[in-house]
Parts: sequence; structure tokens; C-alpha cells
Amino acid sequence: MKERILTGDRITGKLHLGHYVGSLKNRVELQHQYDTFLLLADVQALTTHFDQPELIQRNLRQVAMDYLAAGIEPEKATILVQSLIPEIAELTAYFSMFVTVNALRHNPTIKAEATERGFQDMYYGFLGYPVSQTADITFCKASLVPVGEDQLPHIEQSRKIVRRFNQLYKPVLIEPRALVGEIPRLVGLDGNSKMSKSLGNAIYLDSTPEEISQQIQKATTDPARIRKSDPGHPDICPIYAYHQAFRPQGAQEIHEDCTKGQIGCSECKRKIFATINELLEPMRERRVTYQNHPKRVDEILISGTETARLAAKETMLEVREAMGMNYFAVDA
Amino acid sequence: MKERILTGDRITGKLHLGHYVGSLKNRVELQHQYDTFLLLADVQALTTHFDQPELIQRNLRQVAMDYLAAGIEPEKATILVQSLIPEIAELTAYFSMFVTVNALRHNPTIKAEATERGFQDMYYGFLGYPVSQTADITFCKASLVPVGEDQLPHIEQSRKIVRRFNQLYKPVLIEPRALVGEIPRLVGLDGNSKMSKSLGNAIYLDSTPEEISQQIQKATTDPARIRKSDPGHPDICPIYAYHQAFRPQGAQEIHEDCTKGQIGCSECKRKIFATINELLEPMRERRVTYQNHPKRVDEILISGTETARLAAKETMLEVREAMGMNYFAVDA
Repeated sequence: MKERILTGDRITGKLHLGHYVGSLKNRVELQHQYDTFLLLADVQALTTHFDQPELIQRNLRQVAMDYLAAGIEPEKATILVQSLIPEIAELTAYFSMFVTVNALRHNPTIKAEATERGFQDMYYGFLGYPVSQTADITFCKASLVPVGEDQLPHIEQSRKIVRRFNQLYKPVLIEPRALVGEIPRLVGLDGNSKMSKSLGNAIYLDSTPEEISQQIQKATTDPARIRKSDPGHPDICPIYAYHQAFRPQGAQEIHEDCTKGQIGCSECKRKIFATINELLEPMRERRVTYQNHPKRVDEILISGTETARLAAKETMLEVREAMGMNYFAVDA
Repeated sequence: MKERILTGDRITGKLHLGHYVGSLKNRVELQHQYDTFLLLADVQALTTHFDQPELIQRNLRQVAMDYLAAGIEPEKATILVQSLIPEIAELTAYFSMFVTVNALRHNPTIKAEATERGFQDMYYGFLGYPVSQTADITFCKASLVPVGEDQLPHIEQSRKIVRRFNQLYKPVLIEPRALVGEIPRLVGLDGNSKMSKSLGNAIYLDSTPEEISQQIQKATTDPARIRKSDPGHPDICPIYAYHQAFRPQGAQEIHEDCTKGQIGCSECKRKIFATINELLEPMRERRVTYQNHPKRVDEILISGTETARLAAKETMLEVREAMGMNYFAVDA
């Protein structure tokens, strides 16, 4: 029996190279080693995008397609739609009873995100998202959650909730562990420290070669460098960061040549374009297959959600029994 | 088509005369006039009793039996179990996205209850119970909620949530109105202003004549009155309050006789015992029928919950469609 991992994305936009480097590449590898549950978190997307439901609807199949294109295999990984698992909402309601408002308010990640988003007052659902994330993890009894260091407070919170539940009722839930890995952050085309949809500085996984070529041509480089012979400062150049991320074997040479003024930005950009394009080429091919068979994508999501639903129902039977709320020996 | 009302009780204990006077008597009348949904609120009971699940389990059928004994007719009213309607948890999750923490914190009833219960820090689920109450009302499209004046802030909050949902997405939910009635409060046997389980001053609907007789004999009266001839102060006497509540036609005479020292406490108590016993006698008879057929109670709850579930599923189809989250034209 493989251990089960739970991971996923808030469905607020299609995926870009930042997602690939930060998590998707890793998941493609993990699926061979673990029983992987991949959550399309449409409900959690509402915590910040409740007023843009059309955005979530538009991106659900898109993100699923990004997964499949990147190499997630539906025979290995279970891709599921969060809103179609009502058991997640039920578990959230139960966990909510014994988590205090202050514990949530003092969660450093919640605090940082609220500040980042400029929230004067928090929405109730936003404040509670560590609770519903715990439900995401526990409904399918995932024992491992791949996270970066900054997500450890969430996992700690989830572990606390599970321990409390198991103490209060019966030990039926699994206390999840963090599968801590490096979650590399990719700089944006504009040099911003984070590639992100909202900053408009992202290369999307579904880009055509022409789009990538144009984006890279327009990308920020060292502004102090006018002529090729000017010594460059690769450490502040996003293009150099891409060399490090996607072409590590050649990155040192680029660093030296740039610093010495021996390689021009155009040539440097051509090289990284070729590498990124090569990375995305097989994704494009897989994507075309799915684009030609859109029903197949729906089938994968429906079937993955059904698999997850079975796990959810089993868990809820145990949860209700543990809480003494299995009144009629029938499940609705 | 009759208008639908939603009402119910948190399942934290069996029902007593305070419940009967305050709401149950009224519901028995309303069931003829309205399509009545009666919610056994076991999930909401967890907001304050999450650490006593056995108490909720024990009282579920007990409260259902109290309803039936008091005259709720399963052919007229739908009695349903909250935890078996997962759509309530789903709606709660959706509404949570656009209700602010401050709006909930400033709810006067939440504030008063938190103070009353001595909460230093509030549980997340407790803070959010007006949100889940809105889900209770809206899942079955109830248009009316019988409440007392003090519950108006909750209904106002529910109306706000529904209006916001209907504006954000599509106007598929019904904005509920308060059916404001007097919710008389019954004093306890010890003279405390509220009859309540936790104060141990309650006459339960399932009491035997002997129990009632003993309880009334031991009830507090005017402490200044030693002999029958001492002039009494009926306005501070719980027994007089019961005359007003259950025997209004004879209350004025009691008031006069007591004030003049012309009726003794024993006689006064005998009279109110007879009245209360007469009120509970037909309830006892109905209860015996159900006690002899416990399966019938389960059938009523299962069937009521099924009826409610159908309404819930219809509402969720509309809600998902309104939110653009009906991705696959199939419902799980």
C-alpha cells in the first residue's frame, strides 16, 4: 500500500512556469511513489474570488488540462473537484466547533496573506481556510502533504485539529505529516521576485513558441547594460534566473560570459527560449490530445471525483460513528 | 401552496415547559397553517457541546418524541436531522466567503451569548452560527422563521446574506422574513427568571404526575410568607407565574386571594399541579404510543430528512448553476 498524499491548487487561473517549478514538476515525480490525490480547490478559490465565479468556472478544466499536459497520469493520480465532495464541507463544520478564533487569527500565514491582500476586515471563510484545508487532507485520510517551509504552520494547525478530534471522539483520523521539499520560487519576466498571473509577468504552460519568444524578448534584463561589451549583473536578471531553473548545467557559463561582457542579451535569451520551449513541447503535444477530446478531461475529473467521494463516504461513516452521530445505521 | 417555515431546536436536552410555552405550543398551531420544517439541530448543538456528543445522541429521539407528544403531526410537519443534510454545510461554506468576521463579532446576540457563557476566546464555529443558521433557512427555501424580538438580529443577518448571494450570483434564494411572535419566557421552579435544564429548575414534558407533584411541592414561593394569613407577593412567586401561563382565566383570583392571605401555598400549588398535569396528560398518552413503537419515531425522522434532502438537492442545483459551479451537468 502506497502512502496517500494530498495536494492541489486554488483554481484562480491557468498554471504557469512558476507553478511548474514550484510544485507541479515535483508532483509528476511523486505520483509514481505515492497514491496522489490532486485537489482542484474551487471552493477555496472562492475565499478570495467569491465575486468572480466565472473565473473559477473557466479555469477548472484549464488547470486539469495543465496537470495532464505536465505529465500527471490519470491512471496514477486522482484528480478531484473540491466542490463535489460535500463531506469536506461537513468535516469543516465539525472541526470548526473546537478551533478558536484566536488560534486562526494568530496563524502567521493567515496574518501575512491578510496584510498582503490589504484586508481591513477578514471574511469569515478566509479566516477559516486552515480548517477547511484540514478537511481536504483528512477526508481522504492522506498521511502526507507536500509543502514548502512557509506552509508548515498550516500543517501544524491541521495536526492539532486532528489530534483534538481523535481525543474528543475516537482516533479515526490520520494526523498528516508534511513532506517538506524545496518550493523554488520563480521570478517574473519583469524581474519581480514572483511570477504571478496578477502581475502579468508569467509564461503559461499553454503558451505557443511565438508567445514565449515574444515574452522573453521583452523580458527585463540588467538595465545598466546597454552594449554587449558592458559587464552584466546576472544576479539581478530574470533571464539568468531562468537559466538557473531550467538549464542549470549551463548556468555558470552564462554567469561568467555575462559578467565579462562576452555574451549579449539576445543570444542569452535565445538559449533560454530554446530550453523552455523544449520543456513545453511535450506538454503541448499532450494538451492537443486532450483538447481534441474534451470529453476525456471531463471523464477524468468525474472519475477522480467519484474515487475521492468513495473515500469521503467511508471516512464520514467512521467520523459519524466516532461522534455518536450515526443515528440510523443508514447513510444519506 | 402554503408558505414554508423553518424552526427547530438545538439538541442539548429534552424539552420542558419553558420550551412548550416559548415555542412548541405555537408550532403545534402553525403546522396547520404553514408547511412546517422542524430542524433537530444536532450540528448546531455541537457549537457549545462538541465535547459531549453522547448527550446529543441521547437527546435526538427524545426531542423528536417531545415534538410528537406535544402534538406535532408527522403528516403535516417535516421533522429533519440537521447533520444528515450535507447541503447545509455546503451552503455554510459558500456564505462564509462573503460575511466578514466583524459583522459576526458585532452581532448583539452572539456578543450576549458569548458573555453569558464566559467565552474568553470564541470557537470559530460558534462565531459563525448565524451563517449556518442562514443555511438552515435557505436550503429548504423557507420564507418565514418564527422568532422572538431578541432573534431579529439573526434574521436581519440572514436577509443580508441572502441579498448578497442573490446580487453576486443569481436571485435563486428566498430572503426569509421573521414571523415575530411573543416568545414568553417561563420562570424556573426556583424562581430564576428562566426555566432551564442547566439550572435544574425545569418541569420536563415527559414527567410523571408524581414527579410534577413533588417538583411543585418543593418549588420556591414568596419567602416572606410563613402562614396562610400572611399577605403574599404573587409577582415574585413562580407558582403564580405558572397560573398566569397555564391557567390565565383563574390567575387574577389567585393574585387577589394570595395578596389578601386567603389562599395558602399548598392549595395554590394543588391547583396549578392539576392544570399542568392536565396539559401533559394527552402528551403522555401520545408518548406511550411512540415509546411502544420506537421504530415509528425513526421512520418519521428518516422520512422527514428524506423530504428535506430532496428540497436541499433542488436548491443546491440552483445554487451551483447560479455560481457557475455546475461543471458536469451531473450531481454527485
